[in-house]
Amino acid sequence: MTQISTKPPSGMRDFLPEELARRRYVIDLVRKIYERYGFQPIETPSIENLSTLLGKYGEEGDQLLYRILHRRDALRRALEQDEIQEADLADLGLRYDLTVPLARVIAQYGNLPRFFKRYQIQPVWRADRPGRGRFREFYQCDVDVTGTSSLIAEADVLSAVARVLEELGFSDFTIQVNHRQLLTKMISAAGIDSALEENALIAVDKLEKIGRDGVLGELAQRGVESQQAESLLQFICQEEEESNQAIADRLRSSLDSDKASAAIDQLLELLKTTESGPAGGHLRLSPGLARGLGYYTGPIFEI
Amino acid sequence: MTQISTKPPSGMRDFLPEELARRRYVIDLVRKIYERYGFQPIETPSIENLSTLLGKYGEEGDQLLYRILHRRDALRRALEQDEIQEADLADLGLRYDLTVPLARVIAQYGNLPRFFKRYQIQPVWRADRPGRGRFREFYQCDVDVTGTSSLIAEADVLSAVARVLEELGFSDFTIQVNHRQLLTKMISAAGIDSALEENALIAVDKLEKIGRDGVLGELAQRGVESQQAESLLQFICQEEEESNQAIADRLRSSLDSDKASAAIDQLLELLKTTESGPAGGHLRLSPGLARGLGYYTGPIFEI
Repeated sequence: MTQISTKPPSGMRDFLPEELARRRYVIDLVRKIYERYGFQPIETPSIENLSTLLGKYGEEGDQLLYRILHRRDALRRALEQDEIQEADLADLGLRYDLTVPLARVIAQYGNLPRFFKRYQIQPVWRADRPGRGRFREFYQCDVDVTGTSSLIAEADVLSAVARVLEELGFSDFTIQVNHRQLLTKMISAAGIDSALEENALIAVDKLEKIGRDGVLGELAQRGVESQQAESLLQFICQEEEESNQAIADRLRSSLDSDKASAAIDQLLELLKTTESGPAGGHLRLSPGLARGLGYYTGPIFEI
Repeated sequence: MTQISTKPPSGMRDFLPEELARRRYVIDLVRKIYERYGFQPIETPSIENLSTLLGKYGEEGDQLLYRILHRRDALRRALEQDEIQEADLADLGLRYDLTVPLARVIAQYGNLPRFFKRYQIQPVWRADRPGRGRFREFYQCDVDVTGTSSLIAEADVLSAVARVLEELGFSDFTIQVNHRQLLTKMISAAGIDSALEENALIAVDKLEKIGRDGVLGELAQRGVESQQAESLLQFICQEEEESNQAIADRLRSSLDSDKASAAIDQLLELLKTTESGPAGGHLRLSPGLARGLGYYTGPIFEI
């Protein structure tokens, strides 16, 4: 007799009433606050065309996409081929995040407001080997503004998420901020070839997890010379007591670049704009903050 | 240049703010009323092991399951084989309904109340070729009672869904009720071999869609002799003015079976129990109501 497991699949969870009540409290609160800040909800299907998803998350992301096996005739045709490739077997996948679906929605619907404040709270899926406390199916609570390059939009997002944390009872939290342009400039100022930029970002992104020496090792592995790696880490590593203004001044003078200066101006402006709101006092310039995904271009955050 | 489609995949939908506000109003109302009737929420992962899903929905259902392609090593091993079968390529699938996940949850968690009133509002997926107004990804709003064979449980479910419809502003709706045991008895009384029972059910289930002659044709195609098919339809077809009591009496006398009588008693009891609540006056005995899925055993409903 075959024993059928009654567990959910690895990396996924059942939610029973008590726990679901807590989750719903949190999600309803997030929703209420996002709406108070003028964000409007959208929802997108769990399944997207692979052509929409592939190539947007970098190679690592593509590997983590759950692909959906062809059905019926399409599957039969695929299996009749001599040499079967993964690409023959699937053209649909589960969404990996809510940002690429948002981009598709913006491109698809002409009747959306050009200046569009949107939030989206839905599950995403990653075919990962998740560490403790992480999962293959989990909810994201995204909040975005499209159709503007104004920093007010970024400030709105920061205020909304800080207010959520506050109303959930957190007071001692930090929102790290950085700018993708600043990272690009630090990498080139360290003498690292721009072809290695993505590799360098992936290594730098692990600073909190694997420490200074870990990042140096990873940078070496990824083809960055040790002297260049040291220079990069000098830009990035900051002392606990170094103030936001001091970090900004240090980077501005050592990078000596108009583009870097513009990015620093934006970050300082963001600090000023959010000062009197719920995010005030919680923002921390973090030149080492990289975020893995390839689609970032401007300010980036992490809580 | 390859043009990438910005549409959602076929059979799936994006929900923009205005429409989502309406959907959320409805879903919140459903949730509120289910909870007022004492049902508690659970949620399960979108992805289940295929071993949990397969064989529970009948052959047609199995064909509609979205399967998830193996990743990395498991996929490589599968593709290295000489003769590749569908079963080598996937052992996970998207849930097809919320009933089989509920059964798995009941089996998995010993700490659930034995008498458990549960509701679950989540999307399900079917690799169908959906007709107009139907979709491949859609929400189900399930409400169930486990751990009892009392008809009070069925009455609770009927009252809750009728209250939902009422509060949504519907007054002229019918909840068709039937009993799976009654169908079994009608099929055998018509002289149809029990081996053909599932085939007969699938054909009968289409009565409203394809009419009397359509069902006769489908029954013939599925190996039911025409005289037997006519007998079955005589049990099933009802006049608009035939009262619930008259239908019950007619079936009781023509079937002349203890099991059929017990099923009829249950249905009449259900009518009586719900009479003074929100479902009162909306229930209609419908001996032709079959419902496609194989896991039904007792009373069945359709709105």
